[in-house]
Amino acid sequence: MASLPRIGWIGIGVMGRSMVDRLISAGYELRITTRTRDKAASLLRRGAVWADRPADLAATCDVVISMVGYPRDVEAVYLGADGVLAGAGPDAPLKLIIDMTTSSPALAQQLADEAGKRNVKSLDAPVSGGDIGARDGTLSIMVGGDSSAFEDASPIFNHLGKTIRLQGGPGAGQHTKMVNQILIATNMIGVAEGLLYAERANLDITRVIESVGGGAAGSWSINNLGPRMAKGDYAPGFYVEHFIKDMGIALAEAERMQLALPGLALARQLYEAVRAQGHARSGTQAILLALRHLNTAAS
Amino acid sequence: MASLPRIGWIGIGVMGRSMVDRLISAGYELRITTRTRDKAASLLRRGAVWADRPADLAATCDVVISMVGYPRDVEAVYLGADGVLAGAGPDAPLKLIIDMTTSSPALAQQLADEAGKRNVKSLDAPVSGGDIGARDGTLSIMVGGDSSAFEDASPIFNHLGKTIRLQGGPGAGQHTKMVNQILIATNMIGVAEGLLYAERANLDITRVIESVGGGAAGSWSINNLGPRMAKGDYAPGFYVEHFIKDMGIALAEAERMQLALPGLALARQLYEAVRAQGHARSGTQAILLALRHLNTAAS
Repeated sequence: MASLPRIGWIGIGVMGRSMVDRLISAGYELRITTRTRDKAASLLRRGAVWADRPADLAATCDVVISMVGYPRDVEAVYLGADGVLAGAGPDAPLKLIIDMTTSSPALAQQLADEAGKRNVKSLDAPVSGGDIGARDGTLSIMVGGDSSAFEDASPIFNHLGKTIRLQGGPGAGQHTKMVNQILIATNMIGVAEGLLYAERANLDITRVIESVGGGAAGSWSINNLGPRMAKGDYAPGFYVEHFIKDMGIALAEAERMQLALPGLALARQLYEAVRAQGHARSGTQAILLALRHLNTAAS
Repeated sequence: MASLPRIGWIGIGVMGRSMVDRLISAGYELRITTRTRDKAASLLRRGAVWADRPADLAATCDVVISMVGYPRDVEAVYLGADGVLAGAGPDAPLKLIIDMTTSSPALAQQLADEAGKRNVKSLDAPVSGGDIGARDGTLSIMVGGDSSAFEDASPIFNHLGKTIRLQGGPGAGQHTKMVNQILIATNMIGVAEGLLYAERANLDITRVIESVGGGAAGSWSINNLGPRMAKGDYAPGFYVEHFIKDMGIALAEAERMQLALPGLALARQLYEAVRAQGHARSGTQAILLALRHLNTAAS
């Protein structure tokens, strides 16, 4: 591709909006679609072109990228009746699809198979780094697929992320993201239990974090979410309900591989309790509330 | 104290040796005792003076510091028949005792009470930072006791640590160290489960750590112990059996406070399995072996 490929983008949430914004700034021509058109307004003002259906993107774009919510959404936008692959006829320009949603490795494999039948390459490329990483282009992008597709996508990825790694064939990006979520899930139990212990022992949580955050007990979670817990700030950086989705995918994959992961299973159960207590749309640090509730006299 | 206080030191393990070495270099006069005299040889050559019993230190030193193994050892060296407080008669120079062992908060309170009866101040001051932190003087020192004792001890602490915080009254240092260990314990489950998942998914563990170690899943443990696990290196940085001791103290304290900590309880059980599999003297990263064994066909 001598000139910049035309990019179709599906899903304008918090992450998607910032990522599209960066690609427009980098000079790419964007066509976008998302469930609620209003969410695309600011991007349309910047020159992005609206598409009514994912299928239309396949007929007009070289690359389609998705960043949607759940695996069922990924399935719908690629494999549904109005989906991208339904529009990928023999004369369509589409050469590459990239799903950046955190989704299932098995579905990533299925997309690669279905795309391959239409001579379209496929990558799974979930990210970590949150809204700030999306805005600043400092995401970690974990990629699965073949290396020629990875090479084609790299110029685009370079505008979005800082740490960009091809982890293996189709699904390997999603598997890597699952490792990421397993690490966070179990660590979050420890962060909440540690701070609850500190609270009960009448320690000053901020000062405790100063003592423990810089050494072997240190983690992104204790140093970034710990202070929010100390202030009672449960505003979402990452929604509880999305985290539960991710843990569900990881546990299903682990079951498929016949792998017992007792820590992850416990984390999933504790987050079910967080949701049961009304915190589906709180940030993941709300696990402290669930553990405190667990240890509070019932009325 | 216009001139430097004379320091009595109990316990010349990996940590104690480096810490005494630093204090000798700083110009302090040291008297030392430890279970196995041979372990003190290099320090005696540098001018430290041997003492046969902890009680003798009370009769000759202004400050006594201990860094031993288990709470029962702490109890013996301070409260036993040959212990420090047995030597702390009215004419003894002893003004301050500092236990730097990771030990029980309740015992720290008891030591403070018993020392107080003899007009001796007491601090609990466990550390994190390991053998390297001890050698380089970059430990985190978590202190419990009264502020005048903390002021007296600060010139000494400044030679040993970088992050030095008074966390509250007697026992608050130990409580803070328990928070530190709770954070590590639960996170280690996640690190092992994440890497085992990666292994089963046929990912390259080193490359996975590159993708996940710098973001929200990042922690000291994944970035420092993960690569050792990837290489099959289970040499001890911190012994499994000492970690089990620490988790036992934390669980006992939590029970005393009527606090359920399910993640810590699970970590303790998994580390019991690590020990059952013959890894009491391996490093804490051996939890990967236990989880792999758990998921391996039985013969």
